[in-house]
Amino acid sequence: MTIRVFVTGGTFDKEYNELNGELFFKDSHLPEILKLGRCKLKIDIRTLMMVDSLTMTDADRQIILENCKSSNENKIVITYGTDTMVRTAKILGPAIKNKVVVLTGAMIPYKFDSSDGLFNLGSALAFVQTLPNGVYITMNGKYFHWDNVRKNNGTGIFEEL
Amino acid sequence: MTIRVFVTGGTFDKEYNELNGELFFKDSHLPEILKLGRCKLKIDIRTLMMVDSLTMTDADRQIILENCKSSNENKIVITYGTDTMVRTAKILGPAIKNKVVVLTGAMIPYKFDSSDGLFNLGSALAFVQTLPNGVYITMNGKYFHWDNVRKNNGTGIFEEL
Amino acid sequence: MTIRVFVTGGTFDKEYNELNGELFFKDSHLPEILKLGRCKLKIDIRTLMMVDSLTMTDADRQIILENCKSSNENKIVITYGTDTMVRTAKILGPAIKNKVVVLTGAMIPYKFDSSDGLFNLGSALAFVQTLPNGVYITMNGKYFHWDNVRKNNGTGIFEEL
Amino acid sequence: MTIRVFVTGGTFDKEYNELNGELFFKDSHLPEILKLGRCKLKIDIRTLMMVDSLTMTDADRQIILENCKSSNENKIVITYGTDTMVRTAKILGPAIKNKVVVLTGAMIPYKFDSSDGLFNLGSALAFVQTLPNGVYITMNGKYFHWDNVRKNNGTGIFEEL
Repeated sequence: MTIRVFVTGGTFDKEYNELNGELFFKDSHLPEILKLGRCKLKIDIRTLMMVDSLTMTDADRQIILENCKSSNENKIVITYGTDTMVRTAKILGPAIKNKVVVLTGAMIPYKFDSSDGLFNLGSALAFVQTLPNGVYITMNGKYFHWDNVRKNNGTGIFEEL
Repeated sequence: MTIRVFVTGGTFDKEYNELNGELFFKDSHLPEILKLGRCKLKIDIRTLMMVDSLTMTDADRQIILENCKSSNENKIVITYGTDTMVRTAKILGPAIKNKVVVLTGAMIPYKFDSSDGLFNLGSALAFVQTLPNGVYITMNGKYFHWDNVRKNNGTGIFEEL
Repeated sequence: MTIRVFVTGGTFDKEYNELNGELFFKDSHLPEILKLGRCKLKIDIRTLMMVDSLTMTDADRQIILENCKSSNENKIVITYGTDTMVRTAKILGPAIKNKVVVLTGAMIPYKFDSSDGLFNLGSALAFVQTLPNGVYITMNGKYFHWDNVRKNNGTGIFEEL
Repeated sequence: MTIRVFVTGGTFDKEYNELNGELFFKDSHLPEILKLGRCKLKIDIRTLMMVDSLTMTDADRQIILENCKSSNENKIVITYGTDTMVRTAKILGPAIKNKVVVLTGAMIPYKFDSSDGLFNLGSALAFVQTLPNGVYITMNGKYFHWDNVRKNNGTGIFEEL
């Protein structure tokens, strides 16, 4: 069994540009994170885009959807910004019934020592191996069905509707 | 649903004693790790012991078994040293049929910046929510049934028999 | 001997706001850094402002100058953003002759695990104890006289004129 | 001006062996630390030995002394274990009068996220540039003359006699 990971950017992969003081995207930290976790699962990583989820367009979401549909693997993890994660899950949910798709992200970039990224990726890779077919979000140690979740923007916490 | 976490020590919780240069146990890092992961699951942590798993006795294993049996929660995570994790799983496996028990640990102490502890705990908390009743080990991103796993001491990696 | 530290913000103290994804200032990390360095010098920290050095006004610079002048301690470290550090040093240099003033900062916020902040503060506290009276910048392991330094904006490195 | 760094091991460079749970020495972390500090000083690193300072012999100390004597550079930093740092300084002190030698170390290995190593190296590299000829120890943000320092084994702190 191979797990497919699609990278789309999001807080997860933000880095600090020391020349201009802005956060930006360079390469995904996924390979480094998997190495740190001594992860021995068979994983294929593909970077679809590297964007802040607030700037993600409907065209971007179609690219994600098409990649999920055409993936040979039926276990898929998507790393994604938390701000529009729910919106994208709602695009994928009705369209993908025969695969397990788990979206996850981070509240703090992986490169910050206070990041939740390593924990969340550990969760997502476990959930994708064990949940029945469907589209899910995992954050805060929990998993949520795509049609029963929202991000509480006041607290930053994901919760059931 | 509340998840019960039993702490037993192991590499996970080892700290560096700056006065004598030895590794030792003080308090468990579990609360700190759950906070870092922004984990919002209901979790009750109980420290059963703080020992190196190489020094764990059969009496210690009985304490773990009794605590699993008498736990009101039927989802249990045990943090444990990797060296004798399989041996303890073999004590728990035949005896506990009506609960999900997931043992996990770390190859590198949580306080080292190269630790796999945060990743493994994310995995364990996800697996305990989704696997059917039984006793499992999770390391390296994978889960293993208690009767189909060994630690490869040459590589440090857990693998199926 | 007490060393006076003036905190003015800068990259050094930037944190990641997990609710809106922006970098911001909360409290100074100086006490935490000194504890990490097991620093036993007598140090009095005063936060003068918490701003990005690009937004610092001439009025802000006057506040820094007045505080240096009126400080009872004659050894002063100022944590500061790198972008306008040279400009501020040029205000202080001609005005302060009877004290040692060392400005330092960081290219990467202290809360990133790739930060140079801990190294730079170690340098600055050593230089302030040993250099003759005058105003200096320390970055990249080196010290520079206030009138013989520029930041190379292409490389982010401080160098002599 | 080139600064000579002699590496001798000590807590500074200890790593965690994930296969047997013991602390050990592999390669020095000095190049990585200098990169993290964005250090642009000219530095030549030579590893003389990689040992725990408690196991250091008088023959080892002679090797250090001879290397200091024969070094072309007259600014020398030695990374060393804290336990016998004072003893070695007392060998070097009477013998080296025409160079600046600064010994430093760490209470916690660099690879632990609570390490003081980065701070101490920042201090040592600053002191070696500015102190007059002689042999010094730098720890806890301070510098000490070789004949006026002890490590308080109860607290782990270096202090004047």
